[in-house]
Amino acid sequence: MSSSSSELQISPAIHDPQGQEKQQQAAGVGILLQIMMLVLSFVLGHVLRRHKFYYLPEASASLLIGLIVGGLANVSNTETSIRTWFNFHDEFFFLFLLPPIIFQSGFSLQPKPFFSNFGAIVTFSVLGTFVASIVTGVLVYLGGVMFLMYRLPFVECLMFGSLISATDPVTVLSIFQELGSDVNLYALVFGESVLNDAMAISLYRTMSLVRSHSTGQNFFMVIVRFLETFVGSMSAGVGVGFTSALLFKYAGLDVDNLQNLECCLFVLFPYFSYMLAEGLSLSGIVSILFTGIVMKHYTFSNLSANSQRFVSAFFHLISSLAETFVFIYMGFDIAMEKHSWSHVGFIFFSILFIVIARAANVFGCGYLVNLARPAHRKIPMTHQKALWYSGLRGAMAFALALQSVHELPEGHGQTIFTATTAIVVVTVLLIGGSTGTMLEALEVVGDSRDTSLGDGFEVVNNRYMTRFDDEGSPSESGFRTKLREFHKSAKSFTELDRNYLTPFFTSNSGDYDEDDDINGDQHQERIPFTRRGNFNNRGLNF
Amino acid sequence: MSSSSSELQISPAIHDPQGQEKQQQAAGVGILLQIMMLVLSFVLGHVLRRHKFYYLPEASASLLIGLIVGGLANVSNTETSIRTWFNFHDEFFFLFLLPPIIFQSGFSLQPKPFFSNFGAIVTFSVLGTFVASIVTGVLVYLGGVMFLMYRLPFVECLMFGSLISATDPVTVLSIFQELGSDVNLYALVFGESVLNDAMAISLYRTMSLVRSHSTGQNFFMVIVRFLETFVGSMSAGVGVGFTSALLFKYAGLDVDNLQNLECCLFVLFPYFSYMLAEGLSLSGIVSILFTGIVMKHYTFSNLSANSQRFVSAFFHLISSLAETFVFIYMGFDIAMEKHSWSHVGFIFFSILFIVIARAANVFGCGYLVNLARPAHRKIPMTHQKALWYSGLRGAMAFALALQSVHELPEGHGQTIFTATTAIVVVTVLLIGGSTGTMLEALEVVGDSRDTSLGDGFEVVNNRYMTRFDDEGSPSESGFRTKLREFHKSAKSFTELDRNYLTPFFTSNSGDYDEDDDINGDQHQERIPFTRRGNFNNRGLNF
Repeated sequence: MSSSSSELQISPAIHDPQGQEKQQQAAGVGILLQIMMLVLSFVLGHVLRRHKFYYLPEASASLLIGLIVGGLANVSNTETSIRTWFNFHDEFFFLFLLPPIIFQSGFSLQPKPFFSNFGAIVTFSVLGTFVASIVTGVLVYLGGVMFLMYRLPFVECLMFGSLISATDPVTVLSIFQELGSDVNLYALVFGESVLNDAMAISLYRTMSLVRSHSTGQNFFMVIVRFLETFVGSMSAGVGVGFTSALLFKYAGLDVDNLQNLECCLFVLFPYFSYMLAEGLSLSGIVSILFTGIVMKHYTFSNLSANSQRFVSAFFHLISSLAETFVFIYMGFDIAMEKHSWSHVGFIFFSILFIVIARAANVFGCGYLVNLARPAHRKIPMTHQKALWYSGLRGAMAFALALQSVHELPEGHGQTIFTATTAIVVVTVLLIGGSTGTMLEALEVVGDSRDTSLGDGFEVVNNRYMTRFDDEGSPSESGFRTKLREFHKSAKSFTELDRNYLTPFFTSNSGDYDEDDDINGDQHQERIPFTRRGNFNNRGLNF
Repeated sequence: MSSSSSELQISPAIHDPQGQEKQQQAAGVGILLQIMMLVLSFVLGHVLRRHKFYYLPEASASLLIGLIVGGLANVSNTETSIRTWFNFHDEFFFLFLLPPIIFQSGFSLQPKPFFSNFGAIVTFSVLGTFVASIVTGVLVYLGGVMFLMYRLPFVECLMFGSLISATDPVTVLSIFQELGSDVNLYALVFGESVLNDAMAISLYRTMSLVRSHSTGQNFFMVIVRFLETFVGSMSAGVGVGFTSALLFKYAGLDVDNLQNLECCLFVLFPYFSYMLAEGLSLSGIVSILFTGIVMKHYTFSNLSANSQRFVSAFFHLISSLAETFVFIYMGFDIAMEKHSWSHVGFIFFSILFIVIARAANVFGCGYLVNLARPAHRKIPMTHQKALWYSGLRGAMAFALALQSVHELPEGHGQTIFTATTAIVVVTVLLIGGSTGTMLEALEVVGDSRDTSLGDGFEVVNNRYMTRFDDEGSPSESGFRTKLREFHKSAKSFTELDRNYLTPFFTSNSGDYDEDDDINGDQHQERIPFTRRGNFNNRGLNF
């Protein structure tokens, strides 16, 4: 990601205490309004959830509150100084709001269902997002060529394609949890939307670099640059995560009266990872995501029990606040910003194109994954449809679009931004409001444990693993064999983890597996990773 | 307080991705360095504490780390963009770092020893700080008139007097805790330093307003304006606190799976209080302090047990991070800023004058308090000396001085700022380093419970209260009677609290007193409010 620098700039020294007082007062009023909207969102979201009104999930409610207050502020002649406090600054977003959200995504990711669907998740989020970005970009470009919509240069179309391919998991997943959906489907939707942010942001960055050095760049260099960003950021994140695991394993901080020190150090690591990647010109988002996964998997178990409970609740709290704030902020900003509504065609066709592109992503990759999977583990079409439907766009797309306003020539960035905001509002309100109905229509909701629930879990246990490894028939094609080998590599990662990584990076390696099995069995019929649940379960679940 | 507005300003849209990338990278490196210094401070502080090396407390260590890194950055030709990330912005300080620290001061204040010494604490912090500010201001003015030091206008001398009267509790109190000092002395030092921030900031603000409207202001108006700020902010803070207590009493959020919602709302209230006061042109600091006291006393007991543990640990964590960051930041900024060292005389004499002014505060108010107290409860001279010695200056004085640079004419603000930074460094390093020795020399350290420990606690229990209420001899003067009446009003507040406020604002009014007594007895020999302790004790102690 490339935020446009040097925020928190101090205003030039003002020697007029009167004006200063007034501006400061405006700042106070601005933040006051924001806090009130936050409280309102939380309370409204709670009331709606309590009454099982799924047509307006919390995120949609926050967005609407932002839109309404923004609209009111727009109509009334609110002082400009209060307004400036509300504007969506992409630096603030990228440096303070996004990191906790993304870290929590990785941190709340329970390894079992994630790794049992690892191959599928990686296929959907890496290959699929790549496909979706290219398809969207090409379609938007062709649409421009055919005078259907505002015409953008090809590279900018690809930038738009990649930024609009970042899906937002918050709303859909909270409804999945409320209704209690299939574990494998949940893991797919969650894993895909978490990892595709990383992919989309790396693609966007690569395209942005290609655009600025348009000469002497060939396709090969683009790939190298993309890998540099993605693999580099991932390595930085994993490295910081492992470092933290070793630190907490050997520092001996898990005694009772050092809990505060332990927690202070723990919460600094994710931000360290983020800033390290940014300092190295890599992607902080990708880095902090992998730090979250590694810290949950290794570092977390080296903490004292109290600290485990605390940090789970802490990151949950911080990310809830940031998420809600982001949706309010977005709504407010959408109501306040100048938009170039002249290009309604662009909005209409881009919505159409992202629907097509997501279909290409989900059904294409679903076909590939099913080729590799044995018969009893194939992703059913209902799950694929649910995954296709769950692709609503949120904060990440919005923030990248806001960045593109700074980066692209005048009209282009504005058009992309307007289209993105429209897509965010439409998808959050429509998809968010209808997810419950959709899940029920597809019959992937409720207590479906008799059909496909147990399977995913068992894959990570060695005794079951062999079950489908050995059943490959000799008649399968070479391509299928390759896919099977990919599956085996996921399995061998699990073994590497069990035999080497977990003993090396955690202190309680001996009884870890046993505990894990017991918990896994107990919670099998529930969704095991409660993103908005009670921290007690999560802290002790690991 | 009056921070100079409109931070988080977005830099004008940059259409040069190269420069943008570079600046963003610099931002990353800057924050990365800050995080590393934070981690280093925590680890170093921990190691020093573990080896019982009291000559370099955590705050001093952080300040030194900041000074060293700042010095290195100053010598080397570090890029300006990295530098700007380090500069101490008073808005950032006032809006994001100070609120958690001050709230935690109020929130960690255990009501029993505080209210049993309420009269003395108010005397020291309100009357005493007023006296100290005036004495410092007058002495600095006289020093200027007599050509001993740089000459400032009288109002500016009073501004300097009030900002330099804000003492910092962090370092001294952490050592008090380590060594285990007398409970009453601890309550005095803690209460005084918490409340005198509120007083000093109100005085500073009043003087600043007097300076800018220098015509047509009489002494009476100054008093009114001061009361407006102080009482207004206090009321706002108490009001927000009571509102939160009622909300949590009746919202029914203290069930298990709503803990995240409960905590989200809880942590928003302090900031709401702060911004409300700022929006009303009052002092956010004073407001959030009283919100902290009220929320701990009433709202806290309406939370579920899990949330109680969590919010205690949360505010403890946040304020630890903010505190450590502030000391690092200060050290760094002191090493980086331009200082007008030409006025060494000003520094020397102001150190002398604040020592005198604090003596006038402590020993003068100590005499008054002892007049009102019965013989067995008089503040011993050793405690007064310890209190006098504990007056080191920290972040609040520094931040106000930084503000004065914006507010006052060129040379004046700079002189005040330089003198303040010098005083901060000298007091933090010297006093912080020698507090352990001083406490031992005064023999107020260790297990002194046989002498004066139980007394303070008993005052809030009615049965003991009468013990000294009735012993007033008929020979006492009218002034003494007045002071006794003041004491009685503190008692009647305790009764008001017990009979009306606690039942009205909390849900567990019935068995509150019993629990309280039991806990009080158990913990009598330990300092009951552990600012850096384990949250388990604190959560359940209330």
